[in-house]
Amino acid sequence: MIAADPVSMTQKADLIDLAMLSDRSIEHLLEDAAWLARLQAEKEPLPTLRDGTTVATLFFEPSTRTRNAFLQAAHLLGAQTLAVEAESASIRKGESLEDTIAALEALGVDVIVLRHPQAGAAWRAAQVCVQARVINAGDGTNAHPTQALIDLFALRQRFGEIRGLKVLVLGDLLHSRVARSDLWALHRQGAICLASGPATLLGPLPPWVQQVTDPDPVLPEVDAVLLLRLQRERMEEELIPSLREYRARFGMTSERAALLREEAVILHPAPVNRGVEIDDAVMRDPRTLVFRQMQIGVFVRMAALRWVMQGGIAC
Amino acid sequence: MIAADPVSMTQKADLIDLAMLSDRSIEHLLEDAAWLARLQAEKEPLPTLRDGTTVATLFFEPSTRTRNAFLQAAHLLGAQTLAVEAESASIRKGESLEDTIAALEALGVDVIVLRHPQAGAAWRAAQVCVQARVINAGDGTNAHPTQALIDLFALRQRFGEIRGLKVLVLGDLLHSRVARSDLWALHRQGAICLASGPATLLGPLPPWVQQVTDPDPVLPEVDAVLLLRLQRERMEEELIPSLREYRARFGMTSERAALLREEAVILHPAPVNRGVEIDDAVMRDPRTLVFRQMQIGVFVRMAALRWVMQGGIAC
Amino acid sequence: MIAADPVSMTQKADLIDLAMLSDRSIEHLLEDAAWLARLQAEKEPLPTLRDGTTVATLFFEPSTRTRNAFLQAAHLLGAQTLAVEAESASIRKGESLEDTIAALEALGVDVIVLRHPQAGAAWRAAQVCVQARVINAGDGTNAHPTQALIDLFALRQRFGEIRGLKVLVLGDLLHSRVARSDLWALHRQGAICLASGPATLLGPLPPWVQQVTDPDPVLPEVDAVLLLRLQRERMEEELIPSLREYRARFGMTSERAALLREEAVILHPAPVNRGVEIDDAVMRDPRTLVFRQMQIGVFVRMAALRWVMQGGIAC
Repeated sequence: MIAADPVSMTQKADLIDLAMLSDRSIEHLLEDAAWLARLQAEKEPLPTLRDGTTVATLFFEPSTRTRNAFLQAAHLLGAQTLAVEAESASIRKGESLEDTIAALEALGVDVIVLRHPQAGAAWRAAQVCVQARVINAGDGTNAHPTQALIDLFALRQRFGEIRGLKVLVLGDLLHSRVARSDLWALHRQGAICLASGPATLLGPLPPWVQQVTDPDPVLPEVDAVLLLRLQRERMEEELIPSLREYRARFGMTSERAALLREEAVILHPAPVNRGVEIDDAVMRDPRTLVFRQMQIGVFVRMAALRWVMQGGIAC
Repeated sequence: MIAADPVSMTQKADLIDLAMLSDRSIEHLLEDAAWLARLQAEKEPLPTLRDGTTVATLFFEPSTRTRNAFLQAAHLLGAQTLAVEAESASIRKGESLEDTIAALEALGVDVIVLRHPQAGAAWRAAQVCVQARVINAGDGTNAHPTQALIDLFALRQRFGEIRGLKVLVLGDLLHSRVARSDLWALHRQGAICLASGPATLLGPLPPWVQQVTDPDPVLPEVDAVLLLRLQRERMEEELIPSLREYRARFGMTSERAALLREEAVILHPAPVNRGVEIDDAVMRDPRTLVFRQMQIGVFVRMAALRWVMQGGIAC
Repeated sequence: MIAADPVSMTQKADLIDLAMLSDRSIEHLLEDAAWLARLQAEKEPLPTLRDGTTVATLFFEPSTRTRNAFLQAAHLLGAQTLAVEAESASIRKGESLEDTIAALEALGVDVIVLRHPQAGAAWRAAQVCVQARVINAGDGTNAHPTQALIDLFALRQRFGEIRGLKVLVLGDLLHSRVARSDLWALHRQGAICLASGPATLLGPLPPWVQQVTDPDPVLPEVDAVLLLRLQRERMEEELIPSLREYRARFGMTSERAALLREEAVILHPAPVNRGVEIDDAVMRDPRTLVFRQMQIGVFVRMAALRWVMQGGIAC
């Protein structure tokens, strides 16, 4: 589970949290994803994983795009897939996560892509497996490493490098594993991180993040705004007065988008609550990269699958 | 979205509604399906789609046979598949159909096979996509073009041509996209169309359809009876007094089947409510083609996939 | 549906119940599974099924491991798969099992792997199909033939042969298709069968099974204990006083495991209710083969698929 570097070459590589990876591994993942995107764009043949490789997705939370991006990535690399439906699975029969993971390993699965509502679930799963590699596709409010890689990819593609970029993370940070993974990765790569959102939805912020109460004054200065989805399904009580007020104060309305510079970009991990976090008109703004992020997602997941199958070596 | 003909060769081909296709395209689809059925019967190798083609099924209504017929068709043509479970998907998170479609396109999906409870959904989906082709697998009470192609195929296989055939559509026309698609296609190909069913379930009929109150007098004259499933899950209130009375007046009982000529055929899009629309004994009647229709379904879906991937050119 | 032997070579082979197979067929299945396991261990190429073979899983009960073991087995043999979700299927529209099976056959499916809550369902399904072979993946409380093959495989691997082994089946025999299939197969292969469990959960036992009220006195004598899962989802009323009492009297606690001989083995079909049928510590005991059984499961299912596709010939 310790990742990536020559010192740990003999260990199984899992992709649990970017904070566990060396800079060199992160660099390798991003460059590999860029290479794969180039091959695909030029209609060159894609590399394949070892013959007979099986990738299983095990999702304990609903997902369209993340699960299907991993399945599509596996298909493009020539792997077989098992899409395990957690809701109709043995979990109903009272089985523990650990036993479900061990069962998948016993079937000969090579990579388990896990989404789970509990923080730390991916780590626990990785410890259960002797051979199978685990990729964290989101564990509770903890981490979502491939989403952070997507956002780094998108920003590097636009700006060349991350160092010195000013990035505002806007919205429900409290419930967001995307925010946690992105803030860590952006900081590590040298970006200046700002955060804004309803006071009830900010939660404790890392020391390197500058909190701004009102996003409007900083919008003209930032290079990127990372919008977060209002995770209404995670909110146990009403943490915001109304969606209307949320939009008025923190939504990416046309008026707010007009404050952004021409070169700035707007990111969102999707799915999007249109008319809440972002207006329809701004979704059509060329600075909004939501669907570009999804395209990048397939290449990042291909790179992640290749990386864990190659033992996490940053070569 | 405009289909099929040389004049629209540069446009993306979608299969939304047979009424949008030229006669030449319909002819091409039927002939291609017949060719594929012949190859399969003779155990000849089947043609394959472009390497790396991905077909996604996105079903917002339950389905066994239509979804699996498309998946099987895609497999036989060498394509990869993604079976997107709409019920456990981002839709729960409040995402619009348009954004779900755009996400699938961003994943690199080549064909989206959509079933949706709203009429017009497939059309809207096709307009969202720049590259991905959309095949309508049923949109509300609007259209189900591949089912109509199956029925045309079955009738042509039995009778050589459709022109001049007398076809009775029997049952719940009000809720039936199959009835709408079939009546249009049969009329276009020159059949004489009759319709019968409970007055509450007939709805407005096209002008070329002759309504008959009691089906029995016309049964000895018709070449084919197209039975429709009682769509109990679509009925908001009790539109029929009882299933027993429905069967007595409109069900294909052994007594009614005995009124049909020896050469006549009985079609049903399935799934069948045995003992309601059709009796067990009639299901075993050699004139009943229900399972033959399902076999044809795979070849028609293969032809549909090939047609949209080839740009809808009627070649 | 009549299986396996030269006398029935011209009939379609289905795998419904081991009691319908000749000794020679059972022997062939076990040897084929062992050969496949050896190929896989030595990273030799695996044999493939006829090009274009499609295997459908149709599960009317939740399952992670059995369904995915069959899907994985099909993939390793180069087959296409259709995982039919019974819960979101036409069954909701009132379709009978027979019509669902006939629909899958009409799609060109070669093998249907069926799990169903009613005893006899697999037999009925096999009678519906003209071409498609049916493998019973569990029908009510009746049979689960591939699980019994797994257990025979595990015991032979450990002890060389079954003849003369003393095997205790422990737990909820009343609701267990695994118990029924295993007791038959073990007896047929010459094992001495004992059974123990709460009186309310024993049910009628075959005459060759020796019932023991308290398992403890026999534990030092047995070669294997086959634990059964407490099928709480099948119990219509409270048949046991409490899980705590069940564990105290029949659970494989560390104390009971200490009574077993060094060479004995502990089997469980999984999923496991840890702390009820078996303690955490015993799950880690090297004599416990639960995850080994799952690994064997893939090879047994590959052998089953090959056997039905080859016409059940014991060659």
